[in-house]
Amino acid sequence: MQRTFEIDPWKIVTHDLDKKNKRLQESMTSIGNGYMGMRGMFEEDYSADTHSGIYIGGVWYPDKTVVGWWKNGYPKYFGKVINAVNFDKVNVWLDDLKVDLAKIAIKDFELSLDMKTGILTRRFTVTEQNKNVRFTIQRFVSVTQKELFDVNYRIENLGDQPVTVKVVSEIDADVFNEDANYDEKFWNLQTKEQTSNAGYLIAETKPNNFGTPQFTVGMEMTHKTDLKSVEQPDADQKVVNEFTGKLEAKQAVTFEKRVVVVTSRDYDDEATLKAGMQVLTNKVSDEPYQKLVEDQSQAWAKRWEKADVQITGDDAAQQGIRFNLFQLFSTFYGEDKRLNIGPKGFTGEKYGGATYWDTEGFAIPLYLSLADKKVSENLLEYRYNQLAGAFHNAREQGLKGALYPMVTFNGIENHNEWEITFEEIHRNGTIAYAIYNYTRYTGDETYLKTKGIDVLTAISRFWADRVHWSKRNGVYMIHGVTGPNEYENNVNNNWYTNLLAQWTLKYTLASLKKVSSEKLGELDVSEAEKAQWQDIIDKIDLPEDKKLGIFVQNDCFLDKDLAPVSSIPKDQLPINQHWSWDKILRSPYIKQADVLQGIWYFIDQFPEDVKKQNFDFYEPLTVHESSLSASVHAILAADLHYEDKAVEMYGRTARLDLDNYNNDTVDGLHITSMTGSWLAIVQGFAGMRVKDDTLSFKPFLPKKWTSYQFRINFRERLIEVQVNQSGTKIHLLKGDPLDVKLNGKALNLVGGR
Amino acid sequence: MQRTFEIDPWKIVTHDLDKKNKRLQESMTSIGNGYMGMRGMFEEDYSADTHSGIYIGGVWYPDKTVVGWWKNGYPKYFGKVINAVNFDKVNVWLDDLKVDLAKIAIKDFELSLDMKTGILTRRFTVTEQNKNVRFTIQRFVSVTQKELFDVNYRIENLGDQPVTVKVVSEIDADVFNEDANYDEKFWNLQTKEQTSNAGYLIAETKPNNFGTPQFTVGMEMTHKTDLKSVEQPDADQKVVNEFTGKLEAKQAVTFEKRVVVVTSRDYDDEATLKAGMQVLTNKVSDEPYQKLVEDQSQAWAKRWEKADVQITGDDAAQQGIRFNLFQLFSTFYGEDKRLNIGPKGFTGEKYGGATYWDTEGFAIPLYLSLADKKVSENLLEYRYNQLAGAFHNAREQGLKGALYPMVTFNGIENHNEWEITFEEIHRNGTIAYAIYNYTRYTGDETYLKTKGIDVLTAISRFWADRVHWSKRNGVYMIHGVTGPNEYENNVNNNWYTNLLAQWTLKYTLASLKKVSSEKLGELDVSEAEKAQWQDIIDKIDLPEDKKLGIFVQNDCFLDKDLAPVSSIPKDQLPINQHWSWDKILRSPYIKQADVLQGIWYFIDQFPEDVKKQNFDFYEPLTVHESSLSASVHAILAADLHYEDKAVEMYGRTARLDLDNYNNDTVDGLHITSMTGSWLAIVQGFAGMRVKDDTLSFKPFLPKKWTSYQFRINFRERLIEVQVNQSGTKIHLLKGDPLDVKLNGKALNLVGGR
Repeated sequence: MQRTFEIDPWKIVTHDLDKKNKRLQESMTSIGNGYMGMRGMFEEDYSADTHSGIYIGGVWYPDKTVVGWWKNGYPKYFGKVINAVNFDKVNVWLDDLKVDLAKIAIKDFELSLDMKTGILTRRFTVTEQNKNVRFTIQRFVSVTQKELFDVNYRIENLGDQPVTVKVVSEIDADVFNEDANYDEKFWNLQTKEQTSNAGYLIAETKPNNFGTPQFTVGMEMTHKTDLKSVEQPDADQKVVNEFTGKLEAKQAVTFEKRVVVVTSRDYDDEATLKAGMQVLTNKVSDEPYQKLVEDQSQAWAKRWEKADVQITGDDAAQQGIRFNLFQLFSTFYGEDKRLNIGPKGFTGEKYGGATYWDTEGFAIPLYLSLADKKVSENLLEYRYNQLAGAFHNAREQGLKGALYPMVTFNGIENHNEWEITFEEIHRNGTIAYAIYNYTRYTGDETYLKTKGIDVLTAISRFWADRVHWSKRNGVYMIHGVTGPNEYENNVNNNWYTNLLAQWTLKYTLASLKKVSSEKLGELDVSEAEKAQWQDIIDKIDLPEDKKLGIFVQNDCFLDKDLAPVSSIPKDQLPINQHWSWDKILRSPYIKQADVLQGIWYFIDQFPEDVKKQNFDFYEPLTVHESSLSASVHAILAADLHYEDKAVEMYGRTARLDLDNYNNDTVDGLHITSMTGSWLAIVQGFAGMRVKDDTLSFKPFLPKKWTSYQFRINFRERLIEVQVNQSGTKIHLLKGDPLDVKLNGKALNLVGGR
Repeated sequence: MQRTFEIDPWKIVTHDLDKKNKRLQESMTSIGNGYMGMRGMFEEDYSADTHSGIYIGGVWYPDKTVVGWWKNGYPKYFGKVINAVNFDKVNVWLDDLKVDLAKIAIKDFELSLDMKTGILTRRFTVTEQNKNVRFTIQRFVSVTQKELFDVNYRIENLGDQPVTVKVVSEIDADVFNEDANYDEKFWNLQTKEQTSNAGYLIAETKPNNFGTPQFTVGMEMTHKTDLKSVEQPDADQKVVNEFTGKLEAKQAVTFEKRVVVVTSRDYDDEATLKAGMQVLTNKVSDEPYQKLVEDQSQAWAKRWEKADVQITGDDAAQQGIRFNLFQLFSTFYGEDKRLNIGPKGFTGEKYGGATYWDTEGFAIPLYLSLADKKVSENLLEYRYNQLAGAFHNAREQGLKGALYPMVTFNGIENHNEWEITFEEIHRNGTIAYAIYNYTRYTGDETYLKTKGIDVLTAISRFWADRVHWSKRNGVYMIHGVTGPNEYENNVNNNWYTNLLAQWTLKYTLASLKKVSSEKLGELDVSEAEKAQWQDIIDKIDLPEDKKLGIFVQNDCFLDKDLAPVSSIPKDQLPINQHWSWDKILRSPYIKQADVLQGIWYFIDQFPEDVKKQNFDFYEPLTVHESSLSASVHAILAADLHYEDKAVEMYGRTARLDLDNYNNDTVDGLHITSMTGSWLAIVQGFAGMRVKDDTLSFKPFLPKKWTSYQFRINFRERLIEVQVNQSGTKIHLLKGDPLDVKLNGKALNLVGGR
């Protein structure tokens, strides 16, 4: 655990420029608006360790795969949301002193991300060379005008001597990705033009050999300042504007840079893109800065009104949940159905901003409750639209049906480790499960019957081909898989995978009964095929140990040396940073919920003692070194009345990044697992379930807290749940009356408090 | 199967310039002298698909590893014997016509590698532009002067018109490895100098980040010809000499290029290297070409005298065994104890010319019989000298003792797939087994007691730490391994691996009783340690299926769909070129002998019915897609009197490259598995064994053959075995009388025929 920011219910704030943990601070102060986002690097050059990263949703590059030894079925490229053309660069000189916070003396530093508004503020006073100049710098990516980035400098001379201020603002196409496989750069400059106080630059992603689209981005900067512009010579890969002026003692000046960012995702060709960029530039130029800030604040306020979770009695917990919701919404608010939710959002390069099963497993349950129904439907459609890619992936392995990818932008598998690529196929089950989850929550079967059924049928065909009949055992088996626990690879009969395969087949058979005859004709599922699916449902191996009363994670698991996590010396944790991969694979330690993930998915279908025995067996073996682990354990612990364990697990999921639990937040935030803290509160502490069209709650209040409350959408209603020491209150804020259950008892909600 | 060369008992010859299979022809006509070697590319530029490759033993570069996702315990670099500075380049113009066999019209082509002498001859007549010019080009790397490469052109104008001949000879440092991980070049030019008819060039391998040595090579060329030299301008990365002359009708001219190649492996610094290069150049310059050819022929004749295997009645079989012995000796004849035997020798880049367990498993049994005892001892010492690396490899995995590498130059693991790197640990058993094999064959325990015991103890300590106690089953297990069958990865309790682990511990305990008390003190094996080893010996899991009467390859193997190889459609073979890796891993198909490899190692210790049941079970599941598979099957089939199967398997091993069985000879020859054909004849058909200090034979004659005979060294004797339709004759050609067994009966060999 490493806490570099202060506890504050609404802010991510520090007064320490922590040079050793600069990258960690940058990850934590990332901002985004769904369309684009950036890490919290400084605008000015910082001549020590830093990671400058700006990313634009859906603008990616297929980087040629690196593998030890390429074999048939391996993906050919690894897609990456690439580090965009750098448009936030601003450098400042005070007389001859370059403002480089890695080098010069400063005081009164503050870095503060206001989650209420999405505005990042940085303050410091330069004291080098006996100067006394105060900087206040605010930046944001606009939620109301998604193409707009704004950074505003206020520079105040607190000293007694005049200071000459020089500001150089740039857009620079010479950027690279730290995770480029072959140290290549990914951008080609197309055109650029600069005047004395504005400039634009259009760049294109490099051509590739894989037939995936190239992207063009256009960026135009304008400036508002009382400083005087100074014509600059043409620079190689960038546009540059310089401004200068004299600041008398006690005098202040402001300098605002606005950048409009457009891409070929929204414009057909370079000419319309350029025209569109200029229209937008003109539009935003008219707005006063204060108006932009107000719009931004109001837009975030609206989001919070629907989604805020309030906790009293534990500010750290409060800060955690807000930070998670803030970063989630900054990454994805459902506005663009072509996009999805990358595990690192716009906050880093590792995992490449691509789409993982995290979306269906962890994000959709949250968006179902916190956003318009359409948002979740868009996320489902994203997969429907990528069916062709999923068919391709299965075909590459010589299999029928659809195999959804582990990592993708376009439906084609991108991951470059075989033990994941074609072994971690449980993801296919979660894609199916999300359709069920959406249908169950919304009560609306339209999507299921029109598009969902195509996906379900294709996935079922995959499972039916991927199993094999083991004559010796008289069962169907699934060999050669990796479960959610990636600390075991290439195992046989992973209980979770087999369960999801069986469940998908069952759900598909049941759903086929509901669709139109026209649709049935299209799907063309023969009676023989259905019979085969039923046979697999009936005879699939679901390993169990009767004596221990548990489901067995996979064949041979119980042959291991089953010492609990508590026996590992503390200084060897996390094991993935201290142990060889060999030692990890052979150990019994579980990276993230595996059997328990399956129990969570179908939490109402297992008897309490079964849930308990499995939890008691697996939890002590789990190291939670995936960010997706703690939330599942929090929910199950709450379900089993292990309240302390539930609260402990909540702490890990809510403050995973804030407290850098897994010592890897330096690479970026764990965006998709940020849903976990919300799930832990809502499904865990409040025990929310939807079963047979009925919403129910079984809340408890963590000991340390004095209250918590949250709001959810449910079938055209807005509902508020308040839990405090005197009990639970459920309010229907909007919509028609509704019957719910509270602690097993029926409750009729009517409008008003 | 693809046969591109003619059947000939002593030659690898073709009269077809097969442009589609140019690389295959190049692999097949590779030459080498242990010190250096080259593929059979032409001297002249060939403007179509070709792979020019020259390699110098022990001159390697650590190329930064490519892996999908680096984890602790993965190697940092992959060592490669790199494509050397290109010194064989010669270009010829006839008037304005450049001799480029990819383009110009020729007739009477012949490419012929004479295995009696190691000389590669190429003949063709240029007919383009109505010319009629005959070329005869001979080249060899000298066996008597290892630094010498010689190529000799005879150009004869058969036409009626005079022709102007221009010859340009070069040494070029601008070369690249096709298998470079990051498309980097590996050479830096240091110095060069050229006169009008000679030149030298000194280059160094690039610096690296891994602390492995850089190598310097020096190459000096001189020429003998009646053509006139023409001064050439200085070229960038090369030295160039040009010669020209007029060839009247019916006139011929010769052009000979000699290159001396020296390296920093033999010289301390650049000055001594340069001096040494010039001394050698002067030395070889004095020799007439015919003398060099005679020396070469005599040296090869001596080798054949000791090692030739003669087969009558089957020229294809005869050619196969000679080709294999020829290429093996070209790669390694035991002269330099710092070198080992790369799986592709000097014939290609894949597998990088590094050291694999092939040496101990397959090559030492041959060298024990065909070369001086010292050669095998040198090969054992190579591992002894790399103990530090083996300790390092184990430590990287968090384990005690020594883990010999899968791929290495210096003892440090180089392979870049985790499923091999730290899982294919059975290799450690073979390193130990080779010490036993050497001791058993030579009857000399000196090596065992002085150096071998250090290696055995270190390996035993590794095994003792690598097993784990499975409480549930009351046995020691070895999880997370890959057996010799690389078509399954990350399996548990591979019978072969567990057997070798058990055997190593047993053999080490027994050997410890033989060593000096001083040595015992050094080794410091405690009583507790010995007791632990004994406990593992007693309680290690050796999976067996009593009902089937077989050893089980590994846990879960029998759960697979066990359809035999004969059920795979022919057009899907080899499966590694047609199936996804996913499909292969889940299939029951065995790449190479696994259980059967263990049975071969201890062939006299298993009852016949056990051997038979295992062979009958596993052979039909084996695809033999490793070149190391067929020989083991040939030996076991012979042992079990499956004579047809033995002969079929011999054919596959003997002509693996000549008939391109696995469709991959294009990448280079399968050098280390070339021992297999010899093993198949000697251990298989002739049934040679050494047990309790006694040499024994149980020969049979393959139906198609009329006779075969071979010679072996055994304990200071040279013995010849002749098998024909009337029986077997064994002659003691050199050395003291010896008792051997023939078909179970004692036989006293005395000198003479």
